[in-house]
Amino acid sequence: MKKPVVAVGQSGGPTAAINASLAGVIEGARSLGGRTIGMRYGIEGALSGNFVDLDLALPTARDLEALAHTPSSFLGSCRYKLPDPGEHPEVFAELLAKFEALEADAVLYIGGNDSMDTIAKLATYGRKVGSSIRFVGIPKTIDNDLVGIDHTPGYGSAAKFVATCIQELALDSRAYDLRSVLIVEIMGRDAGWLAASAALAPGAADAILLPETHLETDALISHLDDLVRQKTCVVLATSESITDPSGKPLYQGDSITDAFGHARQRNGMSRYLQNLVRTRLNCKARAIELSTTQRSAAHLASATDLAEARALGCFGAREALIGSEEAFGAMASLVRVSDVPYATELCLADVAEVANKVKNMPASMITADGFGVTGEFLAYARPLIRGEAYPAYVEGVPETVHL
Amino acid sequence: MKKPVVAVGQSGGPTAAINASLAGVIEGARSLGGRTIGMRYGIEGALSGNFVDLDLALPTARDLEALAHTPSSFLGSCRYKLPDPGEHPEVFAELLAKFEALEADAVLYIGGNDSMDTIAKLATYGRKVGSSIRFVGIPKTIDNDLVGIDHTPGYGSAAKFVATCIQELALDSRAYDLRSVLIVEIMGRDAGWLAASAALAPGAADAILLPETHLETDALISHLDDLVRQKTCVVLATSESITDPSGKPLYQGDSITDAFGHARQRNGMSRYLQNLVRTRLNCKARAIELSTTQRSAAHLASATDLAEARALGCFGAREALIGSEEAFGAMASLVRVSDVPYATELCLADVAEVANKVKNMPASMITADGFGVTGEFLAYARPLIRGEAYPAYVEGVPETVHL
Repeated sequence: MKKPVVAVGQSGGPTAAINASLAGVIEGARSLGGRTIGMRYGIEGALSGNFVDLDLALPTARDLEALAHTPSSFLGSCRYKLPDPGEHPEVFAELLAKFEALEADAVLYIGGNDSMDTIAKLATYGRKVGSSIRFVGIPKTIDNDLVGIDHTPGYGSAAKFVATCIQELALDSRAYDLRSVLIVEIMGRDAGWLAASAALAPGAADAILLPETHLETDALISHLDDLVRQKTCVVLATSESITDPSGKPLYQGDSITDAFGHARQRNGMSRYLQNLVRTRLNCKARAIELSTTQRSAAHLASATDLAEARALGCFGAREALIGSEEAFGAMASLVRVSDVPYATELCLADVAEVANKVKNMPASMITADGFGVTGEFLAYARPLIRGEAYPAYVEGVPETVHL
Repeated sequence: MKKPVVAVGQSGGPTAAINASLAGVIEGARSLGGRTIGMRYGIEGALSGNFVDLDLALPTARDLEALAHTPSSFLGSCRYKLPDPGEHPEVFAELLAKFEALEADAVLYIGGNDSMDTIAKLATYGRKVGSSIRFVGIPKTIDNDLVGIDHTPGYGSAAKFVATCIQELALDSRAYDLRSVLIVEIMGRDAGWLAASAALAPGAADAILLPETHLETDALISHLDDLVRQKTCVVLATSESITDPSGKPLYQGDSITDAFGHARQRNGMSRYLQNLVRTRLNCKARAIELSTTQRSAAHLASATDLAEARALGCFGAREALIGSEEAFGAMASLVRVSDVPYATELCLADVAEVANKVKNMPASMITADGFGVTGEFLAYARPLIRGEAYPAYVEGVPETVHL
C-alpha cells in the first residue's frame, strides 16, 4: 500500500513558532505512517518543482525537537498571491499536477491571511476539478490578526519578547535621573495586538499607541505632556502606524537626505514621535525599533505558543490525511475554552471564512482615553506568553537546523 | 564593636551584569558581618546625600538572587566626571565627609573607564589627607575596553545576546530567496569587541566592520560587491563608528528633515551602509540597530559573565573591608589562567593604571582583509558567552527588583 504523503510549505513573514508547526506537521504525518515533502520558498517553489524530502532531511525525533526551536522559515518563504482560479485556471492546473506527481494526499500551508487565501483558492479549484487532495492551512502570524481562531501561533512568542524587552528597556532608561521619553516601535501596521503586549510587563510602558485608536496629534501631545510632568522617564510603546480620526496615517514618513544627496522616504513611527517630543515638549527622546528581532527571537519563545503551534501542525496533518469532509479547504484552529485555568480545543475552521480578513483589537480591550489596554486584554493575552521554551545551546548560542 | 560599612555606587551605561556585581558586593560585606549602603545615581547622589540602606532594601538571599538577574542599574546611574583633586579639593572634602558620616570603611564604585577615574581620584585625595577609607573599583562595561583585566563583566552577556540575535536575524533574512543585504549595528564607538562577537554565531555574519580597521569606502564597496555576487542574502555586522585610513569617521551622520522642517544630524552607521548598498550596489538593504536592547538583555545573560560579575563584587568588598594595602585605590580584576579549560583568577589591579585608558582589539584578532576576526578572538571570546543564566519568570515576564 502507498504511504500517505503530505506536501507542506511556509509563507509570509518568519516567526519564532512557524518551524514548531512544521515539526508538528511532520509528526502528524509520521503518526499515520506518512511521508512529508517540503516546498522550498512556498508556493513559488512548488510551481518551479523545488521540493525537499523532509524524512531524509529530518529523520529523527531529535531533529524535530531542534527544528521546533529554530526561528524563521526552515523551508524558506515567499510573498506570492495566487491569481483568481476562475481567471487563471492554468496556474492551478500546474500546481495540482506538481502535487499529484508527488502523490500528495494533502497539501498544508503554514502562514497568515495571504496563505489562507492560497489554501482557499486551491481548495476551490480542487473541488471544481474533483481532486481528492485535502488543502489545509496552518495559521501563524505575530500580528494575531487572523479571524476564525482565538489567537495565532507566533503571537505569544513575539508578545513575550516584546514584553520582556520593554521591561528591560524601561529599567535601562530609568537608570538615569534625567527627564526623557523612550519610544519603542513594535510591529503591526493594521492591528495593535503586538504593541498591546507591552502592557504585559507591569509598570514598564506608560502609554501604548495602537492602530485601532484614532488620535489627534494635539491630544497625543497633550497626553505626553501630562506624562512628562508626572514622571522622570516616560516609556511609550507604539505600533508601526497610527491614524488620525479621519483614518489617515498620523505620519507619512520623514524625508532623509542620504550621503549621496538623494532624498528618501522613511517609515518610522518612533522617529516621528521622537521629533515630536523633542520639538513640541522640548524633552530628551530616544527611539528604538524592535524590528525583525521581535519575530525571530526563538531564544525567548513562549512555551504555550510553541506547544500550540506544534499541536496545530500535527492536528492539521492528521485531519488532512484521515480525510474528513471538513479537511477539503480548512484551517486548523484553536477555540479558547477557559481563561482560568487556560484551556483551548483544536478544531477545523472553513478557510474561505478566514482568508483576506483582518481581526482588529475590539474597543473593549482598549482604555477609554485610547492610550492603554483594559483588563480584558490582559486576561486574554497573559496565558499566551506563559512558560519559557528554551532552545538547546552549543558553544553559547542556540542550536538551529537548516537545509 | 562597630559593624564594617561599605558604600557602593553604580555609574555609566547599564548592563545585564552590573546588578550581579552589586549583589556580590552586598554578599561580600555580609560575609564579614558588614552593612552596605547604596548611593542613588552614583557619585552625584553621594554629593547630595542620596543614600539607601541595602540591608533594609534587600534583606534576604532570595532578594540578592533576583537582584543579580535584574538588568540596568538598581541604584541608578550618572555620567559625572570628578574634577582634578589638586584643582578642586573642596568636592573631594565634601564627598569624604559624606562617606565618613556613613562611617564607611570602604567605597566601591561599579563602572567603566570613567568610574575607575573616579576611584583613582578619590584614592589620591584620600591618601593625601590620610583617610583610612579604601576606594575600590568594580569593573563593568559591555564595550570590554578596560585595560588591566582579561575582559569586563557585562561584555559576555551582551556578546551572547548579539551573537544570538545575529543568528536569528540571519535566519530571518535568509527565509526569502531574494538578493539582499542585512546590516546590523552593534554598540561600540571606539572598540570593536562587541561587534566582533557577531562571529560567535557560526555562519551568521558574512563580514564584520570594526573601529580598529581603517577602511577606504571603495574597498568596503568592493568587498560588499563580492559578497553580494556570492550569496543571496549577505549579513553585515557593524560597529557604531568606522574610520578611514586617516582616522576620520567614514560617515558623519545623515541630515534628516523632520515633520516640522527642522534638519537634524543623525548617527546611524547602519543607515549609512544601507544607503551605500542601495545606491552603489543597487541591492535591497535593511538596517537594524540593536540599540540599548543589547546592554539590558538580562533574559539571555551569560552564566559565565554573571558568575564573574558577582565574584568580582564579592571579592572587591572583602578585600576592601579586610583592608590590605593594595585596596587603597584598586580595581577588582580577572586574570585568565587558561582557555581550555577556561579558568580565571581574581586579583587587585592598580586603578590608576586603568582609568581613562581604552583597550582596543589587537591586530592579531582581526583578519588580514579587515572584514572578520581570527581564531584567536574566537578562543578568547567563546568561554565568555557560555552558559545561560535565566531569570525567574512571573506571569510570563522576568522577575525584577527595584527601589
